[in-house]
Amino acid sequence: MSSRSMISGIQSRVFRVPLEEPMQDARHGLQTHFELVTAEITTSDGQTGTGYTYTIGTGGHATKAMIDHDLAPMLIGHDADAIDQHYDEMQSRLHYVGRGGIASFAISAIDIALWDLRGKSRGLPLWKMAGGAGKTPLTYRGGVDLNYPLEKLVKSVGGYIDQGFVAVKIKVGKPDLAEDVARLHAVRERIGPAHKLMVDGNFGYDLDQAIAAAKAFEPFDLTWFEEPMEPDDFAGYGQLAKATTVPLAMGENLHTLQEFKHAFEHSSLSFIQPDASNCGGVTGFLRVAKLAEARGIPVCSHGMQELHVSLVPAVPNAGWLEVHAFQIDRYTHRPLVVENGRAVAPDEPGSGVRFNWQALEEADRA
Amino acid sequence: MSSRSMISGIQSRVFRVPLEEPMQDARHGLQTHFELVTAEITTSDGQTGTGYTYTIGTGGHATKAMIDHDLAPMLIGHDADAIDQHYDEMQSRLHYVGRGGIASFAISAIDIALWDLRGKSRGLPLWKMAGGAGKTPLTYRGGVDLNYPLEKLVKSVGGYIDQGFVAVKIKVGKPDLAEDVARLHAVRERIGPAHKLMVDGNFGYDLDQAIAAAKAFEPFDLTWFEEPMEPDDFAGYGQLAKATTVPLAMGENLHTLQEFKHAFEHSSLSFIQPDASNCGGVTGFLRVAKLAEARGIPVCSHGMQELHVSLVPAVPNAGWLEVHAFQIDRYTHRPLVVENGRAVAPDEPGSGVRFNWQALEEADRA
Repeated sequence: MSSRSMISGIQSRVFRVPLEEPMQDARHGLQTHFELVTAEITTSDGQTGTGYTYTIGTGGHATKAMIDHDLAPMLIGHDADAIDQHYDEMQSRLHYVGRGGIASFAISAIDIALWDLRGKSRGLPLWKMAGGAGKTPLTYRGGVDLNYPLEKLVKSVGGYIDQGFVAVKIKVGKPDLAEDVARLHAVRERIGPAHKLMVDGNFGYDLDQAIAAAKAFEPFDLTWFEEPMEPDDFAGYGQLAKATTVPLAMGENLHTLQEFKHAFEHSSLSFIQPDASNCGGVTGFLRVAKLAEARGIPVCSHGMQELHVSLVPAVPNAGWLEVHAFQIDRYTHRPLVVENGRAVAPDEPGSGVRFNWQALEEADRA
Repeated sequence: MSSRSMISGIQSRVFRVPLEEPMQDARHGLQTHFELVTAEITTSDGQTGTGYTYTIGTGGHATKAMIDHDLAPMLIGHDADAIDQHYDEMQSRLHYVGRGGIASFAISAIDIALWDLRGKSRGLPLWKMAGGAGKTPLTYRGGVDLNYPLEKLVKSVGGYIDQGFVAVKIKVGKPDLAEDVARLHAVRERIGPAHKLMVDGNFGYDLDQAIAAAKAFEPFDLTWFEEPMEPDDFAGYGQLAKATTVPLAMGENLHTLQEFKHAFEHSSLSFIQPDASNCGGVTGFLRVAKLAEARGIPVCSHGMQELHVSLVPAVPNAGWLEVHAFQIDRYTHRPLVVENGRAVAPDEPGSGVRFNWQALEEADRA
């Protein structure tokens, strides 16, 4: 153990990063950029820890403002290793302007930086600090492909399989359910019965539509139907689960432990998908994982594969790592490593995520 | 009706305003300042509408950043009077970094400015636009007085009664329940049986503690027991309601319509207390009021009396207006008017809230 290392400074930045290709899902419209908000924490003994969060285009500056004006003054001068205490204090101090929303994004960035510092100071990689159960998660490639014509969709998912992925996810939510079914039919035919297939509705359905869709999707042996409805409709998920054999998953839009508790209690989920960038960082992710473990629910992830690669396999109830189309890992010194269809967590001390600042600056200017 | 008036600019500001006296409740610790975030919207035809929100000390800069970076670009160039459409679009565009939290505060400030513009352009005061059922709400004075010694507490609530208030609220949540009971006893004795009395727990209790407290409070003829537990514990409120005859109230920490729906469904509330500064402005408040009306629940308010004075009495299910110790109305040209124990909504067109900018600037520098 290191001697006490005090937080001496926090520097935050916002980058607006273009996507290689504009993306579309059922709810968010056309997306052309993502925002990356970074927080670098320096300590009295000269270490630096880097944390971050991302958004799909709005809220990045608000997140930075909260780090600068609210969190930095609260943390500077305090023990960098008192992570749980800082976590609870941040949640408490931001409760009135929380719970969730931007506060969760800002807390996540800070928390990840603190874990990066802890790992560096203890000489431990994140996957070991997070539980150490494993370091090679089941891995799937998620497409953001609702706007792809059928042929392009099939080519896209086929490409993922050819790259070695054993599981793929496509977006659903076409105005005509028959079109979704036709797309699923073509995709399942292309990837064959041995590969896993998931679909993501991005809360484009109401309950009746979701039931109809789930029933229509039953023949395709789906691993899960993700976020068919508004994430707040906890009871609706429970009703949907009763009406179909397709397993349900969600979590990327749950930002507080209370929201996860509501989901565990009412939504009959088969998988939970927290995102450490918006559910409270590593600490938030691990608290969700613990709740899920008690209920026997596998923990998957949403986005940010370069960090989640160390979290998902580390817990005893490891689920699937999503490889996301918002490719933050392109701007890091270790883009995701996938071997034999499974991602591999880094062994370097800390979070394992080191940014290529120059590449980010160039992307932001583009 | 005016011709179409386009949003041409949005200017936001943050003021850090000292409280006349530091305040303490069961959960937020000692508070010395509040933050006021203002949004002035100018239109192509030369009008200005002012909106605002406030925080209890953190999040003001994040709110301003969201207005500047996310909402202003979305709104400029569009019809100022398309309020419902803007409301839904803001919620949708901020969904990923919402729902609730800073997004709700930022949307609230913008929405209030749009209603101010609408009122000015139509020559209507807010209480008429909001429903017009009435303009003189039942009014109570809320103290933030948990740190007051008994004698000071009794003097404080006695002072409110002497000023003409017919109802008062005190904070509860002392480590020893017997002390709360003794304080309630003294307060009830001072104000007499004819005046109304409420208590506010600021989510300092867990369920068992809340049940014990509610039972101990039953002899004091309370109008309500406000926010005894975490606002997210919707089912817990329902259990508490079953265990006591004391009516329950909450709402100041519910920021989305979905959260209010959960509360209506599970929490057995006798009163709902939305705050237009953090539940989506006038539009958010009125949507909550409509849901409450369908369930026969009176709509009260939290804070921001200078605006809520026009909203609470305007709806058919009008409840109680809180007069709050965060006295934003001191920095307006019309501090709250109270006549015969009831507040009186202004008749001037617009929101009726015009800031004394010079006083705010001076307070911020103090």
